[in-house]
Amino acid sequence: MRTPPGLAPESFATALREFEGVVGKDWVFTSDDDLHLYQDAYSPFWGEPDERKASAAVAPHSTEEVQAIMRIANAHKIPIYPISTGRNLGYGGAAPVYSGSVVLDLKRMNRILEVNERNATCLVEPGVSYFDLYRHIRANKLKLWIDCPDPGWGSLIGNALERGNGYTLAPYRDHWGAHAGMEVVLPDGDLVRTGMGAMPGAKTWQQFKYGYGPHLDGLFSQSNFGVVTKMGFWMMPEPEAFRSGTVMVYRYDDLFKLVDILAYLENLKVMSATTRVESPLLFGAFKAPPPSPELAALRARNPGREEYEAFAANNNVPYWSVILRFYGSPKLTAAHWEYAQEKFGTIAGAKFKDGDFYEFPLSDAAVNRIMDKAPLGIPSLEAFSMGGRTPTNPTPSNGHMWFSPIIPMSGEAVQECERVFREAFAQWGVNPLGLPLPQLYHERTFFQIYGFPISHDAETNRKNRETFKRMIALAAEHGWGEYRTAPAFMDACADTYSFNNHALRRLQEKLKDAVDPNGILSAGRYGIWPEHLRKTRS
Amino acid sequence: MRTPPGLAPESFATALREFEGVVGKDWVFTSDDDLHLYQDAYSPFWGEPDERKASAAVAPHSTEEVQAIMRIANAHKIPIYPISTGRNLGYGGAAPVYSGSVVLDLKRMNRILEVNERNATCLVEPGVSYFDLYRHIRANKLKLWIDCPDPGWGSLIGNALERGNGYTLAPYRDHWGAHAGMEVVLPDGDLVRTGMGAMPGAKTWQQFKYGYGPHLDGLFSQSNFGVVTKMGFWMMPEPEAFRSGTVMVYRYDDLFKLVDILAYLENLKVMSATTRVESPLLFGAFKAPPPSPELAALRARNPGREEYEAFAANNNVPYWSVILRFYGSPKLTAAHWEYAQEKFGTIAGAKFKDGDFYEFPLSDAAVNRIMDKAPLGIPSLEAFSMGGRTPTNPTPSNGHMWFSPIIPMSGEAVQECERVFREAFAQWGVNPLGLPLPQLYHERTFFQIYGFPISHDAETNRKNRETFKRMIALAAEHGWGEYRTAPAFMDACADTYSFNNHALRRLQEKLKDAVDPNGILSAGRYGIWPEHLRKTRS
Repeated sequence: MRTPPGLAPESFATALREFEGVVGKDWVFTSDDDLHLYQDAYSPFWGEPDERKASAAVAPHSTEEVQAIMRIANAHKIPIYPISTGRNLGYGGAAPVYSGSVVLDLKRMNRILEVNERNATCLVEPGVSYFDLYRHIRANKLKLWIDCPDPGWGSLIGNALERGNGYTLAPYRDHWGAHAGMEVVLPDGDLVRTGMGAMPGAKTWQQFKYGYGPHLDGLFSQSNFGVVTKMGFWMMPEPEAFRSGTVMVYRYDDLFKLVDILAYLENLKVMSATTRVESPLLFGAFKAPPPSPELAALRARNPGREEYEAFAANNNVPYWSVILRFYGSPKLTAAHWEYAQEKFGTIAGAKFKDGDFYEFPLSDAAVNRIMDKAPLGIPSLEAFSMGGRTPTNPTPSNGHMWFSPIIPMSGEAVQECERVFREAFAQWGVNPLGLPLPQLYHERTFFQIYGFPISHDAETNRKNRETFKRMIALAAEHGWGEYRTAPAFMDACADTYSFNNHALRRLQEKLKDAVDPNGILSAGRYGIWPEHLRKTRS
Repeated sequence: MRTPPGLAPESFATALREFEGVVGKDWVFTSDDDLHLYQDAYSPFWGEPDERKASAAVAPHSTEEVQAIMRIANAHKIPIYPISTGRNLGYGGAAPVYSGSVVLDLKRMNRILEVNERNATCLVEPGVSYFDLYRHIRANKLKLWIDCPDPGWGSLIGNALERGNGYTLAPYRDHWGAHAGMEVVLPDGDLVRTGMGAMPGAKTWQQFKYGYGPHLDGLFSQSNFGVVTKMGFWMMPEPEAFRSGTVMVYRYDDLFKLVDILAYLENLKVMSATTRVESPLLFGAFKAPPPSPELAALRARNPGREEYEAFAANNNVPYWSVILRFYGSPKLTAAHWEYAQEKFGTIAGAKFKDGDFYEFPLSDAAVNRIMDKAPLGIPSLEAFSMGGRTPTNPTPSNGHMWFSPIIPMSGEAVQECERVFREAFAQWGVNPLGLPLPQLYHERTFFQIYGFPISHDAETNRKNRETFKRMIALAAEHGWGEYRTAPAFMDACADTYSFNNHALRRLQEKLKDAVDPNGILSAGRYGIWPEHLRKTRS
């Protein structure tokens, strides 16, 4: 039997028996076989001593059981690490940040507590996945959409707490921003409801986000201040129609105006552009057909901008392109698309291509035929095919880690970020998976993505971890910060948010000590350590 | 000289000299004449011993001065009450919640630090009013809009921290929701920047809201956890055109479908409907022409629904109406309005009327001619004319207090709320200013508004305060809570958010004690008291 660090085996054994008393013997896991499921499949410490592992796992069925577990954990000072469905792949999965913690697995708390069709809201437990909620909506023929990330097997609550994103209209695809109301078990076992939920019998817990007085919800995102046991979300009503269209421009410098117009249209809520700025010239998009032999040859030579532009002009291959998405009626989405073309048409030589068009509701058969499901709020696991074994990817990796700094939403920032990292990679002699194209998940900003494969070779992983950390520091020198990261890098990222001698982290940790005096909950998460472990900060 | 409660006059005199050392003699106020300016002009305790008054005021010019003042206040345990511009009329104005506090007046910190036209964001200090920012935009011909409440003389930061609302598109008119990034002086004088501002040299402080790790911004809204010295906002890009239109329906029961369609269209971001559901039949809207003699006679008789409906049908006076607002190009707003008419046209007998239409930018002369400025992001003080002396309002009051519970966005909730309060008023023998029409300031919910005039007769005020408190309790019994209230009612409202033995307030106060151990900052605000005053909770 593994034991949490610093805990006597007898003491741990007692606690496990007490956990069994709460949830039953079947729902306390201590065998290696069972605990294997709580490893991080994409761990960059794969097989190394530093790989983070659970000492046990306990799976409660109710909020009351979570409260009882937290009280027992406090009595024995046992580190606890809650997960919703444990699908946070690339950012730690189910494995605890502080190795040896007991995983509090909330998968059995998977009740869809309410779906309000008229107000387009829902209230769910942490074990509810995007698939679960989608199936509920389809089964009940509700005129509502969910907004899901790819892949769709994760937890609505887990993804929102990590501040993940999806693909539909801006207010919905910001999963944290779209939440309304929480129920939280505090580290001491007390139970809090935020927003209007603090009023017994409240009629607008999932409708009015802020409630009364200080709004505490943010404390519980990307953090370790409580175990969220219920959470509400604003949902999108089913539109009558969806339409997409592609904008294509042919010169490098068109990027600047393209981005400004994108920002204008999204800030006016004319369209949703959750996708990325693609460069059909420089990179093949996911699912795009292979490049022509001429283009492949050009890319291999990687010439200067002028030659690329000449190729673009002569072969009708855009330097930049972006897919726009519109939600409304057939006619209204046509008006949106027409307006977008009018605005982007001010870029000389811009071309446009009509994309998908759907009217709703769709039959199950029609849903299955859709290639790009996420923008329609349909969960899938198709994103995993990206890393699969294909002719162009004969040796798939064992996982990945993404480096994704937030940069300004401007062509200049895209250009600078690309240059800074290109020069650094040359200097460092490394070559991450290149996808230096701006991603549009968040409003008002881009992030760039650089990927590293996870290897089962420790030396490769060590080198990639080192490069990753250098990139964090280099990005911070330019004022670009990570919005989210894996446990291996949580401290390094937190270190870059250092204004006024780390004033924000000092405040976060002061608050942490106040709500979790024994420091038992998710130690180290997002760089926040309890007092007794603060000196071990990596 | 007044002194804060429990403080020796000599000790206070020493502190005032130290304040003078920080801000200069001219900016520490102790005379009755000066302090009169910090009274609440709309105090429901007008002239009574319980009226909340400042013992002094100090007006710093910089963040560093705010820090120095907080350190001095800690050393002497002096209660401090920050205000931005002190224009929070109806919700306490400039007067402290805890009488005898020293007002920290931030009006001199009125710098517009940055306006980013391309990303449509700004960074301002607390003394910057909506007028200030609007003038800056006009002077520099920036293609940006602000979203302002009526009236427009208040502080952007103050209004956002109170979670106030405006009149343009939904993401902008939620002033708290539209903020991005804060700088805060903590009660102990330490300085924190939130969101990306925690990264030195961050490039996206006003663009990316959440930063990294627990998002603490909510702690500082409707609260007493820090003094906000800078705050960023997402702004709306100037649209090419604005168009409004009125939907009119003629039967009482049309309310239900009207509200459902409103919710659908706003949730799909087709339009902004920040206004209220009007009833031209039952009430004259603000600025509406006086009713016909026949309608006035009908209202005076106040007959049953059938008779009202007959009048509505025969005289073309809608039972309900709502003004919709659209932002985009001339053509796009026409498409939005057409779509809205298609949806509302499913209500039998619905009629439509084209409203205002403007193309931008407007000349100063054109701006002056606009009757309804707030939906165009133009600040004014015209709302004050509502309470002025007119033929129909021969004895204007000395102010007002609004009771405004959040209710679900449904016709049924509107109906129930109207019934519950009508019956209660009859039972209690009171008659508040009736405006039981649902207000659409927030997304997803309505609030109802009931107003009480502020009198200079103590007995009248006492009765109105009593009624107000009974309404808070009655609303809570039905699950309806206040989103904001005046100091006189902050404890009473907080009392209704009582789930699990006031778990939320217990958590808020635990956090309060951690960040403000001497309990010097804005004691009692939104019902949160520091430890040493907790027993005095009213």
